[in-house]
Amino acid sequence: MDAVRASAVPSFEAASPARSRAAQRLGPDPTAAALRHAHAHRRHTLALLCDLLRRPTVSSSPAHRSDLHNCAGLLAAHLRRIGLDAVAVRPGRVAPVVTGAWLRRPGAPIVLVYGHYDVQPAGPRSAWATEPFRPTVHGGYVHARGASDDKGQLAAQLAAVEAWLATGGPPVNLRIVLDGEEEIGSPALRHALRRDPAELRADLAVVSDTRMRDPYTPVLVTGLRGSLAVRLDVTGPATDLHAGAYGGAVAEPAQVLSALVASLHHPDGRIAVDGFHDGVRPLCPATRARLARDGPTDRRLLATARVRYGYGEPGYSAFERTTVRPAVVVTALRAGARSAIPRRAGAELSIRLVPDQRPAAVLRALRAHLERRIPHAGVRARLTLLAACPPYTLDLRDPGVAAACRAAVPVFGRPPLLLPSGGSVPFVSDLAALTGTQTLLLGFGLPEDRIHAPDERFAIARLHRGTDACVRLYGELGAR
Amino acid sequence: MDAVRASAVPSFEAASPARSRAAQRLGPDPTAAALRHAHAHRRHTLALLCDLLRRPTVSSSPAHRSDLHNCAGLLAAHLRRIGLDAVAVRPGRVAPVVTGAWLRRPGAPIVLVYGHYDVQPAGPRSAWATEPFRPTVHGGYVHARGASDDKGQLAAQLAAVEAWLATGGPPVNLRIVLDGEEEIGSPALRHALRRDPAELRADLAVVSDTRMRDPYTPVLVTGLRGSLAVRLDVTGPATDLHAGAYGGAVAEPAQVLSALVASLHHPDGRIAVDGFHDGVRPLCPATRARLARDGPTDRRLLATARVRYGYGEPGYSAFERTTVRPAVVVTALRAGARSAIPRRAGAELSIRLVPDQRPAAVLRALRAHLERRIPHAGVRARLTLLAACPPYTLDLRDPGVAAACRAAVPVFGRPPLLLPSGGSVPFVSDLAALTGTQTLLLGFGLPEDRIHAPDERFAIARLHRGTDACVRLYGELGAR
Repeated sequence: MDAVRASAVPSFEAASPARSRAAQRLGPDPTAAALRHAHAHRRHTLALLCDLLRRPTVSSSPAHRSDLHNCAGLLAAHLRRIGLDAVAVRPGRVAPVVTGAWLRRPGAPIVLVYGHYDVQPAGPRSAWATEPFRPTVHGGYVHARGASDDKGQLAAQLAAVEAWLATGGPPVNLRIVLDGEEEIGSPALRHALRRDPAELRADLAVVSDTRMRDPYTPVLVTGLRGSLAVRLDVTGPATDLHAGAYGGAVAEPAQVLSALVASLHHPDGRIAVDGFHDGVRPLCPATRARLARDGPTDRRLLATARVRYGYGEPGYSAFERTTVRPAVVVTALRAGARSAIPRRAGAELSIRLVPDQRPAAVLRALRAHLERRIPHAGVRARLTLLAACPPYTLDLRDPGVAAACRAAVPVFGRPPLLLPSGGSVPFVSDLAALTGTQTLLLGFGLPEDRIHAPDERFAIARLHRGTDACVRLYGELGAR
Repeated sequence: MDAVRASAVPSFEAASPARSRAAQRLGPDPTAAALRHAHAHRRHTLALLCDLLRRPTVSSSPAHRSDLHNCAGLLAAHLRRIGLDAVAVRPGRVAPVVTGAWLRRPGAPIVLVYGHYDVQPAGPRSAWATEPFRPTVHGGYVHARGASDDKGQLAAQLAAVEAWLATGGPPVNLRIVLDGEEEIGSPALRHALRRDPAELRADLAVVSDTRMRDPYTPVLVTGLRGSLAVRLDVTGPATDLHAGAYGGAVAEPAQVLSALVASLHHPDGRIAVDGFHDGVRPLCPATRARLARDGPTDRRLLATARVRYGYGEPGYSAFERTTVRPAVVVTALRAGARSAIPRRAGAELSIRLVPDQRPAAVLRALRAHLERRIPHAGVRARLTLLAACPPYTLDLRDPGVAAACRAAVPVFGRPPLLLPSGGSVPFVSDLAALTGTQTLLLGFGLPEDRIHAPDERFAIARLHRGTDACVRLYGELGAR
């Protein structure tokens, strides 16, 4: 209790009234002991997080391979230190998967805890107020690339595991899976899961890599969008050509690419690919009403993006557009150098899918759409699949859902909202598709955390409250 | 005569029958003396060219400022050595303009000789068979960036000047202007011309920065396309945004840019900008017949681009599309990083203009076109003018035209074809627009020289034949 009171409470995300009530409920039961341990070790949790954040674990960049391995080693040592068994650093495509287990509670359910230690590139240093890979604690926040996505949330999970292991062990069995390739689609982990699903067998998975509605309102994610990452390459002349000498007489890859990309949407924002929407589940009025009530307003959602005007498919709210409706995002365009006709042009697309779209069917529809639009013989277009994962829907009848609700109440003063997320966690989608294992996505990020953007941050209060929620969740899952 | 016979004749561009006839005509007149001097100094001319090619004079790259200055110094020393007066290295925006003059023939016309020593970037080293800035002599060619555009052609002009100065002086007065900023639109030189046109006063200008039809057929360029270089920037959110969290609900600069770029052309290849074609001179049947007869066939023009299929405005040949019809070329597209919605996207356009389009009017039309198509409030588009020059048309009644024809016959066995070029030489356009000075564009490049592309080259035979043509041209201009 002292530890709770003594912890620094940042001004922006002040303690809710629930906080003290939650603290008052600590008792002599095992969960209370684990909570006390967690509270007493908050400084260590923050120190571990800062240690993780100091490693520039950018999985998409070959320059950071050694940083990824270094961070994996740090995590493996930490898992061993806190008492996990069978800790292993398994080679991935670019970064290892760190695993550990605690299977000493025969008969109790196995809970798979998943998190990722890789991060998105920081982008230009000049866009940041602080050094992206030098964690800076300021105003109650840790500022660094990965602070919220996902090292901060991962640190909360690990602190909860540590607290339980230090106080007699959790009432459940644990498998820990720390991915170093989530931001590039988890190729190695997904391959391993496909090859040997039994190895990652669990009764339920728990992931903290999603966002709360606001600092006081947790969200249990009811669904994730699937994703399809593709690259579209258009090639034409064998070399770049002088724009004066040839401009007007040859097919230009950059122009063709622009036209192909433009053809993906109707002018009003609807996706214009025939067959793209096949299988998209119609929204029932009750669902729409719930999303309108519990989800962010357009204004709030757009404010978190620091955008004033929304834009998208007519007839849907911004929250619906980003969660229960699919999207085609152009994440990159590339062509050329000055003064010449570029010989090739490329685009990358991040396509977000909703139930019950199937990635393979969407890819086929996209390919057919593009093939019909290659305008002439002078250019060739090629669509390359970079990564795919299906959408994920949580089965609300799973007893884990009730456990998550019970765990959240004492920490946040209310059960989590049940809301879909627009993001994708490929491993979660695969786990459901291949093994039927449901995942409780109970995250502690906020829309204002600026994940994937400059000045990413994570509130220290949420690190600790997240730890408490995880401690209680493991307790509740054992009680189910 | 010995010197002519002794020179290495490369296999591909073998001596034409005219060659020996031309050699036979050498006599005791001043032109013959200058030609003899040029022939005796061919090795020096090649050595100067290689010296120039060794300098990576990329005017568009700040990294090459010192190379540009170094090359300017080399040229100034050379001009002084061969006997020019008032040699000066005048500061430019990024590279100096080197000038010199020989005005010792009172009453004779002043001929302005213009060339440029800056080059396009080499692009990736891997695309080249040789080092782009280590000139390699092989198979009768010099291989290097700038070999044809314009150092090789410039070296031919300088060798002719040297030959005349060493043998009593040319029958004309000379002003030499060596530009270090042609590939970035000649900002300093054009500014100087605008500020004080009298300083560059001349009766006629001569430029070798264009192409022959084939190794045996010179071309006197009857017109240059104008050019308008613009950058189109589309901005939206304040930062890059997570594609999962926001994809579908915000305006995306990359999508908007693609749609704007695509909107510039009709699907059949015609330019779709209202008012763009205002002032474009209709082609008379006689002109079209001449272009069809003397210009390259579609097949040949496309073969020089190593392209199998042409594409462009219906109803016109490839040669017409690249010379007497305007074009809008997308020279660059840029947006984003992986997995995020890019906050901005940009394109660069190189617009090629024909008589009597005016750059300012075309820019206005383009701006109006784009403004009408900004689809919504979430994005802003900005069009920035990078450079502009009007089209240029040679007045065929100028006596210099007949002089050029007379000069070409003994060297090539035929007068030059009178054909338009698709390229732009901003200084030439300005000279005509501001001072009324006509320019004889008699170049020695070939379409196969791969200017602006990897593996640029220039035939040594053309270097020497070009020198002969320039020697004779100065002689004929004095006789007019």
